[in-house]
Amino acid sequence: MGIFSKDIKTLDDLFVHTLRDIYYAEKQIEKALPGMIDKATNPQLKAGFERHLSQTRGHIERVEQVFEMHGAKAKEVTCQAIDGILAEADEVGGDVDDKQVLDAALIASAQAVEHYEITRYGTLIAWAKQLGRTDCAAVLEKNLQEEKDTDKTLSQMAESRVNMLAAE
Amino acid sequence: MGIFSKDIKTLDDLFVHTLRDIYYAEKQIEKALPGMIDKATNPQLKAGFERHLSQTRGHIERVEQVFEMHGAKAKEVTCQAIDGILAEADEVGGDVDDKQVLDAALIASAQAVEHYEITRYGTLIAWAKQLGRTDCAAVLEKNLQEEKDTDKTLSQMAESRVNMLAAE
Repeated sequence: MGIFSKDIKTLDDLFVHTLRDIYYAEKQIEKALPGMIDKATNPQLKAGFERHLSQTRGHIERVEQVFEMHGAKAKEVTCQAIDGILAEADEVGGDVDDKQVLDAALIASAQAVEHYEITRYGTLIAWAKQLGRTDCAAVLEKNLQEEKDTDKTLSQMAESRVNMLAAE
Repeated sequence: MGIFSKDIKTLDDLFVHTLRDIYYAEKQIEKALPGMIDKATNPQLKAGFERHLSQTRGHIERVEQVFEMHGAKAKEVTCQAIDGILAEADEVGGDVDDKQVLDAALIASAQAVEHYEITRYGTLIAWAKQLGRTDCAAVLEKNLQEEKDTDKTLSQMAESRVNMLAAE
């Protein structure tokens, strides 16, 4: 979370800080996805990444909406976790020659990204409810549901065509 | 994955590389958990982390078993993703004075770790099956199930007592 944890005194502080962490993460994902779209060869995977890029832009807007509802300034804090996940995704996409193996690696990287978002939104929703902000929780729930759906779609791809081709 | 992706030519190479990534990750988690146990104040959370440390040692042994079944050398490759996730976990546990807020932050960090493991084991299982190694998949499935159970327990804690206390 790139955190200055001495500034975190209450659960509300922790909520705002983690919202800034996912805000940074979503923006980094928005920057990383075009590269993944370029590298993907399977048309279904390419289309999936394109759809997710458009969803990610929607997620950023919803996070901004939650900042506004809460009254906290919309700003980013560096998130070392997503930086590490995306650095791995970038490396793995570097020089793998076999296109099907590369697609399998890209799916795995994208699922690592999804799972990071799933855990952070799950946490934020639990905290929003504890803080009595069911309005914020409801907005974040929409992002969580879309991340879960994306992860499920990627799992289906991983278990079916893309990996079977890569194993040939 | 700390990857030299030019060395990855087949799905089997990718499987071995990712097994080395989770091997590194599990060992880093084994090192990080004692610090989280020390910081946790809620007795249920402390006990949960202690149980997970013992499980993590079992996971390392199962990963070593899969290396042996596969015939690949059991070695680690640096995983930037888990390094980033654990760096955040460490920072967040640094200076938060309020013990209940710290417990809530520790749960969130532990869930980020669990989700990373869940996604990597899910990927490895899918690949093992595609490679016709259902024997390796079955061993990895045991680790995945325990990670999912731990995540569920942490979610229940996050949604109940620990966060309610933190919000007081």
